[in-house]
Amino acid sequence: MDTIKLKNPVLITGSFSVAGKREGAGPLGSTFNRVEEDEYFGMSTHEEAEREMFIAALEGAISDSGVEESDIDVLLAGDLLNQITSSSFAARQFDTPFIGLYGACSTMALSLAIGSLMVGGGFIKNALVAAGSHFATAERQYRMPLELGSTRPPTAQWTATGVGATVLSCRGGNLPPVKITEITFGKVVDWGVVDVNDMGAAMAPAAADTIARHLKNTKTKPEDYGAIYTGDLGIFGAKILKKLLKDEKINVAKVHRDCGEMLYSDKQNGCNWQGASGAGCGAITLNGYIMDRLRRGEYKKILFVATGALLSPVSSFQGNSIPAVAHAVVIETK
Amino acid sequence: MDTIKLKNPVLITGSFSVAGKREGAGPLGSTFNRVEEDEYFGMSTHEEAEREMFIAALEGAISDSGVEESDIDVLLAGDLLNQITSSSFAARQFDTPFIGLYGACSTMALSLAIGSLMVGGGFIKNALVAAGSHFATAERQYRMPLELGSTRPPTAQWTATGVGATVLSCRGGNLPPVKITEITFGKVVDWGVVDVNDMGAAMAPAAADTIARHLKNTKTKPEDYGAIYTGDLGIFGAKILKKLLKDEKINVAKVHRDCGEMLYSDKQNGCNWQGASGAGCGAITLNGYIMDRLRRGEYKKILFVATGALLSPVSSFQGNSIPAVAHAVVIETK
Repeated sequence: MDTIKLKNPVLITGSFSVAGKREGAGPLGSTFNRVEEDEYFGMSTHEEAEREMFIAALEGAISDSGVEESDIDVLLAGDLLNQITSSSFAARQFDTPFIGLYGACSTMALSLAIGSLMVGGGFIKNALVAAGSHFATAERQYRMPLELGSTRPPTAQWTATGVGATVLSCRGGNLPPVKITEITFGKVVDWGVVDVNDMGAAMAPAAADTIARHLKNTKTKPEDYGAIYTGDLGIFGAKILKKLLKDEKINVAKVHRDCGEMLYSDKQNGCNWQGASGAGCGAITLNGYIMDRLRRGEYKKILFVATGALLSPVSSFQGNSIPAVAHAVVIETK
Repeated sequence: MDTIKLKNPVLITGSFSVAGKREGAGPLGSTFNRVEEDEYFGMSTHEEAEREMFIAALEGAISDSGVEESDIDVLLAGDLLNQITSSSFAARQFDTPFIGLYGACSTMALSLAIGSLMVGGGFIKNALVAAGSHFATAERQYRMPLELGSTRPPTAQWTATGVGATVLSCRGGNLPPVKITEITFGKVVDWGVVDVNDMGAAMAPAAADTIARHLKNTKTKPEDYGAIYTGDLGIFGAKILKKLLKDEKINVAKVHRDCGEMLYSDKQNGCNWQGASGAGCGAITLNGYIMDRLRRGEYKKILFVATGALLSPVSSFQGNSIPAVAHAVVIETK
């Protein structure tokens, strides 16, 4: 049994999403707390812009929770940049212990999970957790210089510009309680996909493994969840996930939604063929659209499963396949 | 109070250190479980070699602990490579949930700390944690291609080749108990150092902050510890640390030792001017030399403080200073 049930309450008391222009113009745009039209966020490099987005999201989540910044006991965060510099540099602005995480696009679920264990274990009272990404920094690090204007293959996804942050607390505020109750950490799964422009195919087996284990461990069915959200499989990856689970006699078709599929509309610039990806994709969808619905009581219980492709440009240039991981948290409003 | 005291026992039941040739030839060489003369570890790239070292250390620690691999509930690991590919790729070999961490050279303490919270919080029974680095992979990623044979400035340290792994359990084996009892997570500290060849100066303020906070929180004095080990400040960095603490009326001179100072001898190739660095430096010293002394009962209590410089080549090229962090764990044998 490798699903952890939290006995003590872990409440989501604060939440904030900062989104870029493209994300703000998409179908979920109205659910984000802040949409920034300037891709530089007023800074001189895209890397500095990404840091500023982190700081804005972290401060927004603290403000939303109503706790004082001095009551935050720990900050857990991660991003896609080498040495997670967006998170680390943003952490300089906060007088709180910092735990750096790397789970690629699975980081929002990973940070929620570790933060929940720290609060639920009675070790701390308030954890601030975050994940994010910026299209321009990720694109040039993982793929091509933007200036080249390279053509994107049809399996490609578009790295979301956005940061989501959440405050987890042992005691709640005035809002209706939104709680994290169960955690299933992902195993590293590698089915041999080598195409760095097809993250959905690389990550779908990891998502299937975590979802299947979670349902088995908790003796629940897909219909027991108001929704099962995956982070950023994209349109093609989501199809693979449903096929893989169906092969194991698990039908998630009625409840499954993928944040990568949801973030952009077909009417937007067609370069985001398979939808969105990036650590920010699941992070802003959770802290925007999904949190809105949770707070309105539209769901009793959801499963949030963020997936990450654990490649680096070096590992791919050296001919390796792409390992992936998916971490899952159960969020309830009962 | 931001030091966490573990109420439930968290025992170190397994430990293993895999070291490279230079590390094996140094003063601590006899304390490592395995010294590998081949810098390629029998593989075709240095990156693959680093992964193999991780796998060897992880398997060694499991074997040392006496638990079955199937009893390991979670693997927590990190390394210095972009997207921590050494850890993630090694994790493919283990059928256990994986939590990726990034704390640069502070990762051994970070992984011990999070693993201890998971075991001490009653969430799991056995955690496998690890950190490591390889000179050749780190050098070309952070500094220069090795083929250039660049001259190393006098403040430079030499990235250690080695991986250390530890098994943390809620119940002990036949060995005398070695326990993790307290944790102080580090804050991100940045005093404006910009010299990427002077990691000791960048990291010393973070180490001083964590040590001072830990002593204050726990109302202890340096003499209450058999030793206070820092991870890889090096000779110059260790001097700065002692000066900074002395300014705060804390004298650690009698009990402080730095793994970076200890790993090589002056008689070895002089390029390691200020000693060793790297996530592997503290990891193999802890899981080799220090663990030997703990198991022999030579210490009642030590403080292990691993330090990390949270820069990336991009952040430095863009003119940023170097943020740093230091995480501390108390290990007792009483």
